[in-house]
Amino acid sequence: MGRVITLTTDFGTRDAYVGIMKGVILGLNPKAQIVDLSHEICPRGIEQASFLLFTSYRFFPQDTVHLVVVDPGVGSERRALAARSKGAYFVTPDNGLLSYVAAKEGFQEVIELTNPNFWLNPVSSTFHGRDIFAPVAAHLSLGVELGRLGEPVKDMVTLSIPSPAWGGTRLEGRVIYTDRFGNLVTDIPGEALPSEPCNICLAGQVISDLHRTYQEVGKGEALAYVGSSGFLEIAVREASAEELLGAGPGTSVLLEVEPNGF
Amino acid sequence: MGRVITLTTDFGTRDAYVGIMKGVILGLNPKAQIVDLSHEICPRGIEQASFLLFTSYRFFPQDTVHLVVVDPGVGSERRALAARSKGAYFVTPDNGLLSYVAAKEGFQEVIELTNPNFWLNPVSSTFHGRDIFAPVAAHLSLGVELGRLGEPVKDMVTLSIPSPAWGGTRLEGRVIYTDRFGNLVTDIPGEALPSEPCNICLAGQVISDLHRTYQEVGKGEALAYVGSSGFLEIAVREASAEELLGAGPGTSVLLEVEPNGF
Amino acid sequence: MGRVITLTTDFGTRDAYVGIMKGVILGLNPKAQIVDLSHEICPRGIEQASFLLFTSYRFFPQDTVHLVVVDPGVGSERRALAARSKGAYFVTPDNGLLSYVAAKEGFQEVIELTNPNFWLNPVSSTFHGRDIFAPVAAHLSLGVELGRLGEPVKDMVTLSIPSPAWGGTRLEGRVIYTDRFGNLVTDIPGEALPSEPCNICLAGQVISDLHRTYQEVGKGEALAYVGSSGFLEIAVREASAEELLGAGPGTSVLLEVEPNGF
Repeated sequence: MGRVITLTTDFGTRDAYVGIMKGVILGLNPKAQIVDLSHEICPRGIEQASFLLFTSYRFFPQDTVHLVVVDPGVGSERRALAARSKGAYFVTPDNGLLSYVAAKEGFQEVIELTNPNFWLNPVSSTFHGRDIFAPVAAHLSLGVELGRLGEPVKDMVTLSIPSPAWGGTRLEGRVIYTDRFGNLVTDIPGEALPSEPCNICLAGQVISDLHRTYQEVGKGEALAYVGSSGFLEIAVREASAEELLGAGPGTSVLLEVEPNGF
Repeated sequence: MGRVITLTTDFGTRDAYVGIMKGVILGLNPKAQIVDLSHEICPRGIEQASFLLFTSYRFFPQDTVHLVVVDPGVGSERRALAARSKGAYFVTPDNGLLSYVAAKEGFQEVIELTNPNFWLNPVSSTFHGRDIFAPVAAHLSLGVELGRLGEPVKDMVTLSIPSPAWGGTRLEGRVIYTDRFGNLVTDIPGEALPSEPCNICLAGQVISDLHRTYQEVGKGEALAYVGSSGFLEIAVREASAEELLGAGPGTSVLLEVEPNGF
Repeated sequence: MGRVITLTTDFGTRDAYVGIMKGVILGLNPKAQIVDLSHEICPRGIEQASFLLFTSYRFFPQDTVHLVVVDPGVGSERRALAARSKGAYFVTPDNGLLSYVAAKEGFQEVIELTNPNFWLNPVSSTFHGRDIFAPVAAHLSLGVELGRLGEPVKDMVTLSIPSPAWGGTRLEGRVIYTDRFGNLVTDIPGEALPSEPCNICLAGQVISDLHRTYQEVGKGEALAYVGSSGFLEIAVREASAEELLGAGPGTSVLLEVEPNGF
């Protein structure tokens, strides 16, 4: 079956680790369509990968299998998982990589991978991406049912995902992801934004009001807008907000409705 | 249909933007063969992308769709285009990205993308690559006719592409592209080169005569030759001409036929 | 036929060279499944590419074609080869890129590419990856027999590949590859390791005993283990062994069995 399998790792592209996983997948499902999401996740960047996955997976066809390997605990007792949410499949170590999808969408089924019939043999102790996750993703793309891969899990590991909420006229969120353009993606969903004018404070600076496109401000000026992933973003037109504002993942972002809309 | 779609962007590969466009494409045409040309175009590097596209597209099969998104004006009034040249299709913002193909080959048909039936819904104001260009490319790869996508355009935006020409015994061109090896690609077509011996002056240095291969000069020596894209290139054997000669895009290149072939 | 073709080059991904080779391949075999192994081989990194290929190719399906272009001698008299080993095909310049596969597995058939019917026409003198290797790989993926591509070769160029061997209680090998995590891959095969406790000396430091996983040592501590490629590796948990130990390709690695297993 020509199903799509996406790959997200911290392996980089200098070594052949990603290519080898693709070789394993194509050996099992020669018709798989493999798409790279990112291989430049920061080593151990579990929250970053979790957010990137959450903002990407809905743009893939039904029954796509998302393989995510950011795995500092490889070879330890950490479990390996396969999960299903709204017709998408996920295959990852059990270390929080599915936190955003879990918090926002939930899962219909989560399985611990315990059935070695769906793995390479032997399994190395340092490269489960190749030996467990890639073959499991290939089998899922061939239509193997989740339940055959192992045992149900009720206590998947999740990071705590704060949900920014209004307290009176103020809402506090934070930067969660910086993209290659230096745009700052926050955890404040577009739906939470007020219809009244508001100020946005970040790293000691105030950005007035929301815009729709970069062209609405001058070059080098900061602006806030609802980004393509549906969350509030802060950018600087034709420059890096990360650099110019001195902000990054974790930076606090404060929204304040102006009482008189001055 | 298993048609090829190429992608050229300034999105980099750290974020999932490119992967998301592929997800959108495969959702519409599961059999598309997607090929990355480059995602490391300099932000706003419209001329660079235009040249790269021109030197690449002829090596792709008939009816390949070339999707190019270098789009500093996203969300503004800049138009979105689809175009056809010699059996290749192009989908881009209307900002000069098709200048080289236009200057060298011309287009049989240029359409402004105005028919939202071929886009995602809703369309964001910051990621038309995902919401307009990717789905349009997928529809073209499925055989949708160009005319259904919108209205004919007669005044496509083009950069001015200088055509180096001989003035007596001298021809002046310039460096247009530097590749990862530091080789300097000029805008002087191989066909314009004289059969007589000539000197090539660049950044205050003189390179004598043309060569065919790097091995014809010593290590660390500069040479000029007709590169694989059909244009005059300047390289330094086993080193970077960009670094050693202090040249780059825009650097003037002067050819002079030696009157006595000394 | 939907066969897999892998690509390994020193072309990087900033330019369109790799994409162009894919265009040529898909023009000849629209169903080829193309997989990137690495395009970040150091320029002229023939041994590195040879090792990477050797540790990767066994994970690909039967009859995969491996195209490797690290080609400082392009345009010179160096030969171009196609070869077969255990049902895998290889297409490369004749400059040592097949040394590891040759030393460890041997070849059933090695052919010099002399039949221009399987090349692009014309052939440039600087980009044989596009004009010779890519079309030959595509033809092989379509089932063309090796013998039709040219003449048998008996004297393929190979690098000298040292085979670390025990001398009494000591075995000396060396680091052969550093991956993006800074892990040091040596040329000491896992099978050569003793069952008794041993010390591993590298760059003036002693690492005691072998481990199975990173978790068996503290953060920032060095460990030795049999890596996923089957060779002894030295790593530092959650850090770069290359940086912290000051080692890299060529660094000597000494194993010494402790006489009393103290």
